[in-house]
Amino acid sequence: MATVVAPKDFSPVEDAETIKKACLGLGWGTDEKAIISVLGNRNSFQRKLIRLAYEEIYHEDLIHQLQSEITGDFERAMCHWTLEPADRDAVLANAALRKSKPDYRVIVEIACVGSPEDLLAVKRAYRFRYKHSLEEDVALHTKGDIRKVLVALVSAYRYDGHEIDEDVAISEAGLLHDDIYGKAFNHDELVRVLSTRSKAQLNATFNRYRDIHGKSITKGLLGDPVDEYLGALRTAVRCLRDPKEVLRRAIHKEDTDEDALSRVIVTRAEKDLKEIKELYLKRNNISLDQAVAADTDGDYKEFLLTLLGNETS
Amino acid sequence: MATVVAPKDFSPVEDAETIKKACLGLGWGTDEKAIISVLGNRNSFQRKLIRLAYEEIYHEDLIHQLQSEITGDFERAMCHWTLEPADRDAVLANAALRKSKPDYRVIVEIACVGSPEDLLAVKRAYRFRYKHSLEEDVALHTKGDIRKVLVALVSAYRYDGHEIDEDVAISEAGLLHDDIYGKAFNHDELVRVLSTRSKAQLNATFNRYRDIHGKSITKGLLGDPVDEYLGALRTAVRCLRDPKEVLRRAIHKEDTDEDALSRVIVTRAEKDLKEIKELYLKRNNISLDQAVAADTDGDYKEFLLTLLGNETS
Repeated sequence: MATVVAPKDFSPVEDAETIKKACLGLGWGTDEKAIISVLGNRNSFQRKLIRLAYEEIYHEDLIHQLQSEITGDFERAMCHWTLEPADRDAVLANAALRKSKPDYRVIVEIACVGSPEDLLAVKRAYRFRYKHSLEEDVALHTKGDIRKVLVALVSAYRYDGHEIDEDVAISEAGLLHDDIYGKAFNHDELVRVLSTRSKAQLNATFNRYRDIHGKSITKGLLGDPVDEYLGALRTAVRCLRDPKEVLRRAIHKEDTDEDALSRVIVTRAEKDLKEIKELYLKRNNISLDQAVAADTDGDYKEFLLTLLGNETS
Repeated sequence: MATVVAPKDFSPVEDAETIKKACLGLGWGTDEKAIISVLGNRNSFQRKLIRLAYEEIYHEDLIHQLQSEITGDFERAMCHWTLEPADRDAVLANAALRKSKPDYRVIVEIACVGSPEDLLAVKRAYRFRYKHSLEEDVALHTKGDIRKVLVALVSAYRYDGHEIDEDVAISEAGLLHDDIYGKAFNHDELVRVLSTRSKAQLNATFNRYRDIHGKSITKGLLGDPVDEYLGALRTAVRCLRDPKEVLRRAIHKEDTDEDALSRVIVTRAEKDLKEIKELYLKRNNISLDQAVAADTDGDYKEFLLTLLGNETS
């Protein structure tokens, strides 16, 4: 369930005017709290209408306006939040690829957490925005085995029904075990199974794997912790099997990774952030709200807490 | 341009009734000519409405009805024709995969001839009809290098804009040449470039290849004529560069391949069959109509000639 609190009644024009006024700031600089109070409490459809109203009234893109008024982590999180979800994922994917060391976790999350239609919408948005396919940019910025698995995962257009084939689950559980046991991690079969089978089928296969071999497939994929290829395979298995746990892990780190924290909160606040919060509390013995409050500050902190469902002060 | 001749005015209900009457046959068996005269002269939207009207009036699927009334090549061609285009390609792909020796050409054609959106529509139809993704069924029915290239090609969701990057064209022309010259045909780079780049970009790359190396890339991919993997790569390059020529080749064989003949006429009659006919005449010194008339007979012949734009007798 969502954590973001959005009113049923709202006026896109009034909201656009409130934001403009907050940006003008009446001599005291930008009124960030007003911006948070409006945009942090609107769902994606409402934000879309506000952005359209803003463009219509002020002939200016709301996101460009925000970029010129606010800065740092707060700016990045607010701009990502204001984008439409598929377009936001396209921007996140591109940013992850352009890092000096591409962040493969973001690519795996985008490829494996959502539905096949979600991924397709991201690929469409990516093509529109960057004039390349997501696949070719993934290929451009990576190489070797990690490239093979990432290109296959973003290329997937899986079946999304619930039917499963038990025989396939058993035979492919054996096949995955052969690959892993033989440490043939870059074997094409492993990549092929992970990137073409439906989530329901993969879950059946992972379950059979555990039944037959007495341990989970992710255990078999443990290895050198800095081996990105194995990391990508483990992340993919987890995203396909239990995305909420992956997202909880992404935000639970010794050193808070601002990118991951902001990404998970912004992308999940309208989806399943409530369940991720529950899982976080259960596993970490501290609520996500407390963790965010301790690790962040200022407008950025207030914005994230608003998306987490806290009343704006 | 299309060859099929469809009237502007038509009545789905009248057409459905005409077909039903033709199937009942009034004691003389099915009236195939009447069926050809109706369905062979309707475009895909009109056929869809006729199928809906037929279902509504007779509580029976038109295609099931046709299957129980007609037989052989004529039945297959007529049923394919009556299906919606994306669904038809899904059926053709499945049939090609289920052959004792899968027909990779059909898969490559479906993956590379149409637009990225066309391929996506086929993949959607395939999932709906067979409860598997096209990717997983391609992987199931093939193996080795041919599997690698076919899975990658059907997974593609290319950028479809016209922008090209000349630097990429030059560097990838070199990369393809290195792969081919080194006879590393199963090299991942070759498959990656062919399956992720936009058609415009690939055409630029193929042109640079020819400029730099003095011969076409398909020449470099010549080899053992029974090597399916090389054949698939050549077909893919041709489909991406000049689909009409591939389709012309598909129907020009010493022994007429009924599958290919029927497939090309049925799938292209509403698209570019006119240009394919022109190309056929230019290269083969005989018109496609004459070739079809000489190689086929009966209702099947009459149906194909109708789709080729000949008046129904």
